Amino acid sequence: MKFIDQRELPDKVVLREAGTIEEQIMAIRTLAIRGAPAIGSFGAYSLALALSRGEVLEGTYGSLLGSRPTAVDLRNCLDEVALAFVDKGTEDAMEAARDIYERTIEACRRIGKTGARLISDGARVMTHCNAGALASIDWGTALSPIRYKARSGGDPFVWVSETRPLLQGARLTAWELAQEGIRHSVVVDAACGHLMRSGEVDLVITGADRVCANGDFANKIGTYEKAVLAKEIGIPFYVAFPKSTIDGKCPSGASIPIEERDGNEVAFIRGARVVPEGTPAFNPAFDVTPAKYVTGYITERGVFPLEGFLNLIRDSPKTHSSTEK
Amino acid sequence: MKFIDQRELPDKVVLREAGTIEEQIMAIRTLAIRGAPAIGSFGAYSLALALSRGEVLEGTYGSLLGSRPTAVDLRNCLDEVALAFVDKGTEDAMEAARDIYERTIEACRRIGKTGARLISDGARVMTHCNAGALASIDWGTALSPIRYKARSGGDPFVWVSETRPLLQGARLTAWELAQEGIRHSVVVDAACGHLMRSGEVDLVITGADRVCANGDFANKIGTYEKAVLAKEIGIPFYVAFPKSTIDGKCPSGASIPIEERDGNEVAFIRGARVVPEGTPAFNPAFDVTPAKYVTGYITERGVFPLEGFLNLIRDSPKTHSSTEK
Repeated sequence: MKFIDQRELPDKVVLREAGTIEEQIMAIRTLAIRGAPAIGSFGAYSLALALSRGEVLEGTYGSLLGSRPTAVDLRNCLDEVALAFVDKGTEDAMEAARDIYERTIEACRRIGKTGARLISDGARVMTHCNAGALASIDWGTALSPIRYKARSGGDPFVWVSETRPLLQGARLTAWELAQEGIRHSVVVDAACGHLMRSGEVDLVITGADRVCANGDFANKIGTYEKAVLAKEIGIPFYVAFPKSTIDGKCPSGASIPIEERDGNEVAFIRGARVVPEGTPAFNPAFDVTPAKYVTGYITERGVFPLEGFLNLIRDSPKTHSSTEK
Repeated sequence: MKFIDQRELPDKVVLREAGTIEEQIMAIRTLAIRGAPAIGSFGAYSLALALSRGEVLEGTYGSLLGSRPTAVDLRNCLDEVALAFVDKGTEDAMEAARDIYERTIEACRRIGKTGARLISDGARVMTHCNAGALASIDWGTALSPIRYKARSGGDPFVWVSETRPLLQGARLTAWELAQEGIRHSVVVDAACGHLMRSGEVDLVITGADRVCANGDFANKIGTYEKAVLAKEIGIPFYVAFPKSTIDGKCPSGASIPIEERDGNEVAFIRGARVVPEGTPAFNPAFDVTPAKYVTGYITERGVFPLEGFLNLIRDSPKTHSSTEK
């Protein structure tokens, strides 16, 4: 499988090949490929290809699932492929992976179309991390409404928080926005509250890695802070995601496993040490934003306040795949 | 004048010499020397030495004052030296500079002694930027209570937010704490809200660059976010500073000039470009925290809630120097 190695951006666009399950897991673990919907789709194809090579379902499923713990898309998509395989065999497993891939693109396009209505002409949108095409095959989640708005001539401006430690905002979101000629500026993460308080932000849109049954959600570390600040200051805060990011079995944010990554991601920036030798660095990769801070949930079905979103989940059949047929 | 070049830390401890006013201004502008009380004292000596060389008061005063706009210590300390010079001549100007230097050390020691009572044994204190000995000649402002507590065997633990863009937390605060064997861990700025919400933080203490007559204060960008989050979560938030940081003529935070520094401080980290070429970066160096988020003001006179702090300002004579005699 070929993929863009996101670690090399924005300096170079490097296409890499991951042929074995081990290589595919490493691509996910090292964030060469990242973003909840993207790793869902990448994981689905990884599993389907392994099954078509005759590899054993249980082991392959387990090692892929263990590659990253927080984003639920990976589990949802692996489940769908595994179910198709158990029901009907390798060809249907491959068909399920293809379906996930196409459905993700279409869901993200719809997120853009429906979410763009929230953005008035020339509005200044703040986002965090990268929830763009790189994170979701095409369109993006948080970036899709912005992209849609820009393509229809609405000239949005984007505040990009750099997103330490791995700088997905500065490196990836800025790169995507520059590709499309969308106005933007990068700021350090800690400047976001100041910008909001100074009247420089009209709304905030982020992506999600897992949305719970009560509307709490996990996303890149720093998302929670932005949601609290937006509420305190009176700025709308939206979270954008496709159905694959919903974990109906997770009752609340307290049940979401938060990945802790290597402290060296904090201690070194692009190879240069930035903390004294011997000083420990703690590196939680995600945080949880309680539902009470969310103005609206931007999904492929429309934009919902909490009550509407909870109804949407309740009305949906339990499994991820069957709801989409 | 000799000083530690803070840009070289934590890799090397480099002593530099700044002999001319131009060199001294460059040392302040480039953050080779930084921290509100430290630049106050450094500026005071710079002016006194220039006057003793026979340089003209007005021009020297103006160029030193213009070197950095937000921290008020520089203005307060320059005023004190200028007043002594106008009243009595060069020797008294030098004496005023020496007095500021010694008073700052003593004020910071007292801040430590009074503030240490807020820290229970083994408490986990969060701080931001560097408000340590490097920023204030000795002891520190925010770090002084922590240092005092540690020296009396109270074993505090410090969460150090790295403080992008220039990483004063990761580079300087971590280095100071390591020197004293105080337990600590560095986190990215955007992780602070998550740590507070996860019950990992008992109190927050930051320094200040300017405290207004109504209790609002300016400090390193990102301080405001921490204050809002602490209040939302129910964690005490303290700000520590000596009298030289008070600007009694500044009615509220809205009147504080916020320095905007070069966007390249955001775009490059230790020489490596981290945003795509052509992408602009916006770099406000400070933010304002309204008084309503402050649990207490830690000063050399004691710890005060807002009302007590306002009384303290009202009761003090107007000029900075005369209140200390």
